[in-house]
Amino acid sequence: MSRQDIIGYLGSDWDRTMDLIRSQLHSDVALLELTNGQLLANAGKMLRPMVSLLVARAIGMPTQDSICYAAATELLHNATLIHDDVADGSAERRGKPTVSALFGAGTAVLVGDYWLARAVDLVVDTQHRDAVIRTFAKTLTDLAEGEMLQLEKASSGDTTEADYLRIIHCKTASLFCAAAETAAVSVDADAEQTAAALAYGSSLGIAFQIKDDILDYAGSDRLGKPVGQDLLEQKITLPLLGALQGSPEEEEIRALVREIPSHPEHCERIRRFVAERDGVGFAARRLSEWVERAVLVLEAFPDSPAKDYLAEIARFNEWREV
Amino acid sequence: MSRQDIIGYLGSDWDRTMDLIRSQLHSDVALLELTNGQLLANAGKMLRPMVSLLVARAIGMPTQDSICYAAATELLHNATLIHDDVADGSAERRGKPTVSALFGAGTAVLVGDYWLARAVDLVVDTQHRDAVIRTFAKTLTDLAEGEMLQLEKASSGDTTEADYLRIIHCKTASLFCAAAETAAVSVDADAEQTAAALAYGSSLGIAFQIKDDILDYAGSDRLGKPVGQDLLEQKITLPLLGALQGSPEEEEIRALVREIPSHPEHCERIRRFVAERDGVGFAARRLSEWVERAVLVLEAFPDSPAKDYLAEIARFNEWREV
Repeated sequence: MSRQDIIGYLGSDWDRTMDLIRSQLHSDVALLELTNGQLLANAGKMLRPMVSLLVARAIGMPTQDSICYAAATELLHNATLIHDDVADGSAERRGKPTVSALFGAGTAVLVGDYWLARAVDLVVDTQHRDAVIRTFAKTLTDLAEGEMLQLEKASSGDTTEADYLRIIHCKTASLFCAAAETAAVSVDADAEQTAAALAYGSSLGIAFQIKDDILDYAGSDRLGKPVGQDLLEQKITLPLLGALQGSPEEEEIRALVREIPSHPEHCERIRRFVAERDGVGFAARRLSEWVERAVLVLEAFPDSPAKDYLAEIARFNEWREV
Repeated sequence: MSRQDIIGYLGSDWDRTMDLIRSQLHSDVALLELTNGQLLANAGKMLRPMVSLLVARAIGMPTQDSICYAAATELLHNATLIHDDVADGSAERRGKPTVSALFGAGTAVLVGDYWLARAVDLVVDTQHRDAVIRTFAKTLTDLAEGEMLQLEKASSGDTTEADYLRIIHCKTASLFCAAAETAAVSVDADAEQTAAALAYGSSLGIAFQIKDDILDYAGSDRLGKPVGQDLLEQKITLPLLGALQGSPEEEEIRALVREIPSHPEHCERIRRFVAERDGVGFAARRLSEWVERAVLVLEAFPDSPAKDYLAEIARFNEWREV
């Protein structure tokens, strides 16, 4: 399976979604045209609209609403990425300078607000707007709460696995949930299918974030993000949580995490600890469980290429080279 | 007329709106509780929910929807203030440190997103949600476009009076429009009354911003904002535009504005220019025109204390000591 196979399969639905994203961002304010153009040119894999359209296809025939929700979810996702880059002070995303780095944090905040506004605008005239606005409001609340909880936990250093799951559900899985759920709604799925779509989005999103967190310890810098960044920001993710489990050094290591801002050299010591106790192996096992869960819930849908692609997308998280 | 008179007149509608704002912001994320508590403790005059409830009362009997929209408009307003303080790098608002100054720009972005999410959440279960979500999406687009246009014009230095009006309509009046229009919708106003509410909100908002811009030249620092800040940020507002009108020095002055980042001492020279050509007098005349417009459109409503209070609120912009 390649990304091109899926895009070929989605055909004109994909093209219409991409066109809609572009046209929805058009503004006669030159600074917005400039920033939006650069963001679109570095748009990444567009995984969320892909999942959205595949879920719609797995359940029924994609409608105009399906196209709108796929596009709106991508706008919402990018709005929050732009804001997260301000929150994290990130200079790069996908190997390119962020809006915040190029135009300043202030401009980035406003550009993010604009994308958010355009996402909501895209939904207001659709048939299933009630359900979708409700989903988007919940997603936005989750995203902000998740990021805030992450900030709070970063300074306290006491993140548990339950905290970690809540954070990644809120900050990452919530958008995959929104993509899958609004797609189901767009084709008038029944309650069982909508629940399955939501469960798929949730499991896929959690798997996706665990994989990202594994790559921060074990990966190359293919994602355009330097390795070890999470730890430097005092984020306690699953590989470290796995290594801490049952370790007599737990309190000592957590104390080191709290000191990272003034002692960045602790990161090296903590990374050795994670390697010695195979924290990445622990995280990889959890990852497999979530991937299996994502594949399993797809059984609620009839057999189709769309269903197969959704399973492949979930399994792809295991394939990405560690 | 005092603020307390209006609050007394609005009675339990006011109390329910304030309670709703507080309960809608409750979160079990400690960092959010902390920032939200501080923001609520320094909430300012709450002019937008006041206008909203008065418009509802001027047209009919406020409903549960009226309360929701008054609260949601205030949440939306504060979300954008929190983001604007990041955009402008402001250390103070209403004489107190901003979220951005206390907790960093990153936290401020997320807190703003959270308030935004809670505003949308407040509307999704109301009767008139379709119209109101549409209004909010437009308002958010306007706010982001207005601030971006202002940033763009700040560096180019070629702001015209038409640009200025568009900027202040987008960044300030749009929220008063949202407050007044959603209030009209909440009491099932007819088309004429809804249009009048919108026109009132628009005129009031423009008057409000012109007054704020006058105070930046002629005022004390009662608003908790240092005098002269706009010019320091290269914002060309109405007093300066008035002074530039028909002046042979126009190009020279605009060139000075463009150089402010490296030559902040130009501000003194430009302020003298505005004083000599009575730019504040020009702006004050425009202000009176917008106040009169706001009062005039209220004629669409039957006589009532609410209508009188709305007129007083508009006229109050002229009273505030220059």
